[in-house]
Amino acid sequence: MLEPLLAQAWKYDGQVTTDWDRVFARRTRRMKSSAIRELLKLTMQPDVISFAGGMPAPELFPVREFREACAYILETQPHVALQYGPTEGYPRLKELLAEKMQKYGVPAEPANVLLTNGSQQALDLIGRVFLQNGDVVITSEPTYLGAIQAWNPYGPRYVTVPMDEHGMITEKLEEALRENPKAKFIYVLPNFHNPAGITESLERRQNIVELAVRYGVFIVEDDPYGELRFEGEDITPLVVMHKENTFYLSTFSKTLAPGIRLGWLVAPEAIMTKFIQAKQGMDLHTSTFVQMIAADIMERGILRQHVKKIRQAYRERRDVMLRALEAYFPEGTTWTRPQGGLFLWVQMPEQVDADDLLRAAIEERVAFVPGHAFYPDGRGRNTMRLNFSNAQPAQIEEGIRRLGRALQRMLG
Amino acid sequence: MLEPLLAQAWKYDGQVTTDWDRVFARRTRRMKSSAIRELLKLTMQPDVISFAGGMPAPELFPVREFREACAYILETQPHVALQYGPTEGYPRLKELLAEKMQKYGVPAEPANVLLTNGSQQALDLIGRVFLQNGDVVITSEPTYLGAIQAWNPYGPRYVTVPMDEHGMITEKLEEALRENPKAKFIYVLPNFHNPAGITESLERRQNIVELAVRYGVFIVEDDPYGELRFEGEDITPLVVMHKENTFYLSTFSKTLAPGIRLGWLVAPEAIMTKFIQAKQGMDLHTSTFVQMIAADIMERGILRQHVKKIRQAYRERRDVMLRALEAYFPEGTTWTRPQGGLFLWVQMPEQVDADDLLRAAIEERVAFVPGHAFYPDGRGRNTMRLNFSNAQPAQIEEGIRRLGRALQRMLG
Repeated sequence: MLEPLLAQAWKYDGQVTTDWDRVFARRTRRMKSSAIRELLKLTMQPDVISFAGGMPAPELFPVREFREACAYILETQPHVALQYGPTEGYPRLKELLAEKMQKYGVPAEPANVLLTNGSQQALDLIGRVFLQNGDVVITSEPTYLGAIQAWNPYGPRYVTVPMDEHGMITEKLEEALRENPKAKFIYVLPNFHNPAGITESLERRQNIVELAVRYGVFIVEDDPYGELRFEGEDITPLVVMHKENTFYLSTFSKTLAPGIRLGWLVAPEAIMTKFIQAKQGMDLHTSTFVQMIAADIMERGILRQHVKKIRQAYRERRDVMLRALEAYFPEGTTWTRPQGGLFLWVQMPEQVDADDLLRAAIEERVAFVPGHAFYPDGRGRNTMRLNFSNAQPAQIEEGIRRLGRALQRMLG
Repeated sequence: MLEPLLAQAWKYDGQVTTDWDRVFARRTRRMKSSAIRELLKLTMQPDVISFAGGMPAPELFPVREFREACAYILETQPHVALQYGPTEGYPRLKELLAEKMQKYGVPAEPANVLLTNGSQQALDLIGRVFLQNGDVVITSEPTYLGAIQAWNPYGPRYVTVPMDEHGMITEKLEEALRENPKAKFIYVLPNFHNPAGITESLERRQNIVELAVRYGVFIVEDDPYGELRFEGEDITPLVVMHKENTFYLSTFSKTLAPGIRLGWLVAPEAIMTKFIQAKQGMDLHTSTFVQMIAADIMERGILRQHVKKIRQAYRERRDVMLRALEAYFPEGTTWTRPQGGLFLWVQMPEQVDADDLLRAAIEERVAFVPGHAFYPDGRGRNTMRLNFSNAQPAQIEEGIRRLGRALQRMLG
């Protein structure tokens, strides 16, 4: 029984003083607020140049097209758009996404597609259906913070594999699989890795798939940025090579707009049943209205045009950032040169602690995310992630100049 | 280690033949598709009169107002509407909801409000933060199916308390609390109960709160229909009497439109931190765009007007259904007379199995939900839930006539 008069354990607007473990589920202890989230609050003052979030350029949102899509849908199908819909997703959008996936060689039919509230919910769904306390998740080092947050409540252990410029190092990955018989899946960010900016080469993808087959584990292929390639050729997705055992996820957040919270999960049909049941218990279904907007925008070819436009803009911003890093950052600092996406990754001299640098940077009115946030074990203290999609080119140049100055000062 | 070559365990578009328990999390076994969901598929043919779902009347949706809200938001604040937002929710909407709650006597500030993807997600959040394998949830009998679906993955045991026309029977509730020291919360649907159509009287509410205090358990107050009262006076919400230990949830799904998937959770600020952390891992935040539409519609007073309109329409539909039940249903059948909401509950003679009746009813082109779906233990085989919000009055009359005929034949 809980303490009688638990009411005394906290105030309505105050602190908890009760025995947490008797009140909350054990998993609740493992929930932590994201460092990025707390930082974003700090960096919302308008005079701070922020390289911190993963936000698209707001001035490029296709606003007029959104307005047209809303008007059209509410004109022609309001009774569908505003009503309950199927858990799997709006049928026409599933068709459009299946076609899109097929273009990349993924043999997806509409029944293989589930619409989610951003790809964050797809990560949660994967955790909910597959992860048991004590399971091992194998992931790159660094890795996407949001995945760790999604999976922590399910109690897995993370085993990390270092990367070089071509992706996860094969020998280290095999070692991790050999040493962890409870490994359940390998988490791969194949294109323009968040936060590292690295793309897995074709050879590395083949190696990952071979190892997944040999050791009998799943692959989770998280691909929010694949369409934002600035140069070079598209590389075959892992799901094409290993379709039965790969769960592929992507999102409209980077290509269209994050404010609509719309992503999707691609999985074998037999497994989809379980994802759909899980999703139903979680929120019944994703907004019909939002799904219809996305379908309309895809159907009219606007998404394709828009992606072209932001690809060009983000390429320019990446180039500005790379040139500014050359100009303003001190010797002994290195960074990745991503072929697409939103982020690059900076390695600073050993003695620099990115948390200290962030404090100095905020005084200079510039922000970034300290790299340790992307290490499940909190290492990587001398690293940072820089976003180049959100700020405009002149701000990027100025922001990197300020950040270089703060870094120079710390190095003395 | 998972079986090597797990790929052989299923086909991309086929069946699973693998050892589920080695592949899936244990909680996945407890996920089941909702009976309603499968039924809705059957009843989507246009000639079926459906009393099955909990769908609002689509012809009453405030479509023009939605169109105006979309245009206005995309005209004035597109960069906010389409961008990432805070996990807690859009600040203005939190303010508006706090004010609305205050009108009912709930001492909520914006910091006590969390926006969710429908109230289904609020149920999931409560389960995620509080429910541990083996915890006991005390609920009415029958109870809302979606809550069971939301909580099943967390492994609670349900202890049910029968109701009479005034709500949960106090002696039985006390018995349940006394016998179940692992009880964590009492789940209460205070107004126009889904599926039973019953409203908890003020005295019963006081009893529930007294017992919750005495036995040190939380209350989950699920109130989607509170604003849809056709007659009589509003009754004080439980959260007003027991604010520190009640989690209150509601939704725009019944008052505005379910297709936007927007609900909210009200909780003490100290606990809110954990709900926000959980929500962040689940999907970062609820659609900014959708939240701004709801805020605009509230701000312009449209929600209030619209609620008045549907209250009147649903009252008429309830009356038509009650009259038709009197006219067409056989002796020995009883039903509730809800003072609001969307549903009424029918008790049929012992020998009737509602699943058999549903098969006969579908031949007559009319549908409902068999009552056992609302019993965690599958009892209640001679009961059914009837929705009166979705079908128009003439259809309701005709549908009840058909259903009465099917029932007469089964008894005959």
